[in-house]
Amino acid sequence: MKLHGYFRSSASYRVRIALNLKGLSTEHLPHHLRNGEQRAPTYLAINPQGLVPTLEDDAGTVLTQSLAIIEWLDETHPTPPLLPKDPLRRAKVRAFAQALACDTHPVQNLKVLARLRQLGLAEEKVTEWAAWANREGLSACETLIAGEPGPFCFGSAPTLADLCLVPQLANARRFGVDVAAYPRLLQAEAAAKEIKAFADAAPDKQPDAE
Amino acid sequence: MKLHGYFRSSASYRVRIALNLKGLSTEHLPHHLRNGEQRAPTYLAINPQGLVPTLEDDAGTVLTQSLAIIEWLDETHPTPPLLPKDPLRRAKVRAFAQALACDTHPVQNLKVLARLRQLGLAEEKVTEWAAWANREGLSACETLIAGEPGPFCFGSAPTLADLCLVPQLANARRFGVDVAAYPRLLQAEAAAKEIKAFADAAPDKQPDAE
Repeated sequence: MKLHGYFRSSASYRVRIALNLKGLSTEHLPHHLRNGEQRAPTYLAINPQGLVPTLEDDAGTVLTQSLAIIEWLDETHPTPPLLPKDPLRRAKVRAFAQALACDTHPVQNLKVLARLRQLGLAEEKVTEWAAWANREGLSACETLIAGEPGPFCFGSAPTLADLCLVPQLANARRFGVDVAAYPRLLQAEAAAKEIKAFADAAPDKQPDAE
Repeated sequence: MKLHGYFRSSASYRVRIALNLKGLSTEHLPHHLRNGEQRAPTYLAINPQGLVPTLEDDAGTVLTQSLAIIEWLDETHPTPPLLPKDPLRRAKVRAFAQALACDTHPVQNLKVLARLRQLGLAEEKVTEWAAWANREGLSACETLIAGEPGPFCFGSAPTLADLCLVPQLANARRFGVDVAAYPRLLQAEAAAKEIKAFADAAPDKQPDAE
């Protein structure tokens, strides 16, 4: 399989963790987002959104959208599971993941921040926007799992929630958010970082890291 | 069950369609988003993001995030199915849904547009921002299903993709997007609108419609 990604893309980071947890090796094909490589016609032909990640399997099948890719990996390679079996618990894990993957990350991604700059916003206002989006999402997530047993977001093993949390916390720090406000999230992050699958997926471990 | 929503919220609209397709009746509890009712402490206690929708079942269990709610409904009330059985086809449907629910709608929701106004953006620039987000998402979606048989997004029956598409097209029109540029999406929308479950879920049919 081939994973089209970018070292710093948090959506790519989620999929890298999932692939590592499932023990699947892939060829990594970096697309330098700051240089606009994701807008190349050859890439748009496989991902019309011009976003990373995209997963291509050995038959040439193309999958887009990180959460859809991760659910597909979980359905086709069920061990270890990334979602609980109980429907209600699955819904809780998915809701946490979507609070970050829908309502937080897309509001502070490179494309949106570039648009804010085009509108004439000063750089410190752009950073404050990104920090705001992260604080809104992370503080809600802190409450969502306040009553959940740890050390991970939902119990004793990582789930889709942790796959979204760890990359989002990395973003939050880059934008200057004081993440000490989220002790329960930091507990889950610390547990995740003990696992090689998470550590190996970190941006600074990728071949295209700068 | 109780559905906390808002007539014009496209995320609530998605869930209303799903409930209607599954033949489930719910009590509708409107929260007027423009008046900030979603920030009331009693509502934040059940949905810490301060967003709609939230579904409460008869046991008082609380579910948040529209896609997580719809997947839960589909797992607990499997007929009619809202996702295909084949993992690869499920991934395609989910990716289409997420292109709208992650990358489009949250970039143009009420909260983000209010933040743009706070930054001093003129009203026509705010509308242009929302139109841009819709065009980006819808044009990618038009390509994603260009090779799919109709009339729905993915074949002869509605799926999660159509549940996300119909509300997003309503948003796009409100922001002045020329949706004639998306003939394949309009074909799916026309097929969906023939179905009572979709028609009854429309914003102007809701008790809190203005």
